[in-house]
Amino acid sequence: MKPTIAIIGAGAVGGYYGGRLAQHGFPVHFLFHGSYEAVRRNGLIVKSVDGDFTISPAELHAYSQADHMPKADLVIVTLKTTANHFYESLIDPLLKDQTLILTLQNGLGNEEELARLFGPARIMGGLAFVCINRMNDGSIHHLDHGHIKMGGFESCPPDRVREVAELFNQSRIRCTVLEDLRYGRWEKLVWNVPFNGLGATLDKTTDKLIATPQGQALVRTLMLEVIAAAAGNGIHLPPDLPDRKIDETKTMGAYRTSMQIDRQENRPLEVEAILHHSLRAAMAARVPAPCLQMLYEMATLP
Amino acid sequence: MKPTIAIIGAGAVGGYYGGRLAQHGFPVHFLFHGSYEAVRRNGLIVKSVDGDFTISPAELHAYSQADHMPKADLVIVTLKTTANHFYESLIDPLLKDQTLILTLQNGLGNEEELARLFGPARIMGGLAFVCINRMNDGSIHHLDHGHIKMGGFESCPPDRVREVAELFNQSRIRCTVLEDLRYGRWEKLVWNVPFNGLGATLDKTTDKLIATPQGQALVRTLMLEVIAAAAGNGIHLPPDLPDRKIDETKTMGAYRTSMQIDRQENRPLEVEAILHHSLRAAMAARVPAPCLQMLYEMATLP
Repeated sequence: MKPTIAIIGAGAVGGYYGGRLAQHGFPVHFLFHGSYEAVRRNGLIVKSVDGDFTISPAELHAYSQADHMPKADLVIVTLKTTANHFYESLIDPLLKDQTLILTLQNGLGNEEELARLFGPARIMGGLAFVCINRMNDGSIHHLDHGHIKMGGFESCPPDRVREVAELFNQSRIRCTVLEDLRYGRWEKLVWNVPFNGLGATLDKTTDKLIATPQGQALVRTLMLEVIAAAAGNGIHLPPDLPDRKIDETKTMGAYRTSMQIDRQENRPLEVEAILHHSLRAAMAARVPAPCLQMLYEMATLP
Repeated sequence: MKPTIAIIGAGAVGGYYGGRLAQHGFPVHFLFHGSYEAVRRNGLIVKSVDGDFTISPAELHAYSQADHMPKADLVIVTLKTTANHFYESLIDPLLKDQTLILTLQNGLGNEEELARLFGPARIMGGLAFVCINRMNDGSIHHLDHGHIKMGGFESCPPDRVREVAELFNQSRIRCTVLEDLRYGRWEKLVWNVPFNGLGATLDKTTDKLIATPQGQALVRTLMLEVIAAAAGNGIHLPPDLPDRKIDETKTMGAYRTSMQIDRQENRPLEVEAILHHSLRAAMAARVPAPCLQMLYEMATLP
């Protein structure tokens, strides 16, 4: 029997991945927030570099309240981290004894908080390497990439992680299993800290940030501070990572990161999960991170 | 006989101080750039907390070209530092053997460049502690403060500095003489680096920058790096300077620094004089300045 899947906080990321799972025959139930009315009317419309598709209003299981949703075998959390204080009220109604919880959210601290609330053995985390935006009409534009790297949190059994990864791979989403979720989280922060942080703070697309030698130096300095913070926390990332990440970013063109879009739309920024948790991890390990600190302080200005 | 005064680059600062000197009977010749047509039509209109005044078109000696101006006894340079490559062509036509040159420009490196071009014994520098804006109609709004601190560059005789200071004091502008011009320059940078640099880069008024503990920490960190850079260059500023400067800034309200205004008007920013010279001085003295470097790199992004 196919597992019942719940998507909690179906924005761009949850809409896209949940849509792919539904497109491939899985029973997916979506908790929408901002675009609930639009998807009820138009269905879930996805324009994707890997092929457009729509889940029609008749086929779409769309909800605006978690306690109207059925219990799930797998809860995929794609809330913005600024809404993490709703974890308990949104996720608790969906849980059975064996329900797994996968967070695809940004930054650090999400698995820890989910484990505290719902027990560590069922928690897994995934990193979505994807360029994706939600439009004002509720449709989703998938621009590039899409690979997910997934791992279990602490005592979560590896078998169960592989089962969940398999659901994605069956839905034409490349999904690989990480030996060490924390390694993956820190590796992704190496990109997210400079590009989301500077992108939002300075309101600049990724191409602007790396257009000049000074800009590349700025991005590289922040990346090296994140790498040093990771090392202070026992995660040893390769020294050529900044160069590789900058090279990858060159292929993205004038990409607006999610945090830059949030700034432009006057929505709360994911400062806590992306910048503050990294900074605190550096401080806890007594690793100097003056530029990360400066970026955090800039990002919290009124 | 009253000395003939030339104001080179009469924007907000040059228009205001030159206007006060003219108002008090000194023969002042103004080289205007952007507002030449407006002042020819309307005169030099100054709205000031210390009393409004206008120099009428008939009384105003306004020029758009330096080589139409008479030779001067005192040349006051109030160009934006981004126009310093015009020093030679704008100042050379005005010089007699004994002509003094006073730069009221921002940042570091201006006296050095003037000394290189015109000889050190005639060069003096002044720091204008003033909140002042030029409006689109060419009028000048003097919002607060106005004190000038002035000093001779290297071999410039102290007597001559006192003579020039006296001209300002006779025109109801408080002007004091610095024993050490470099001390004054660095002291002013302690304010200019964070407030002009962050103000322009983040497009925020001074009140926003110090509204939160994080913002004050950010400003203070930059100030401490400037103080350390100064110390590395033999200038020892008092350790309580950041607190005093932040307290002074609280009285200014929502002040737009000149560099923030330049950004908003899409004009070149004084990054070189304010940020890059400070950073280079830190680097030359091998003083770490990671946040100053980050600010410089952010300010030069396209």
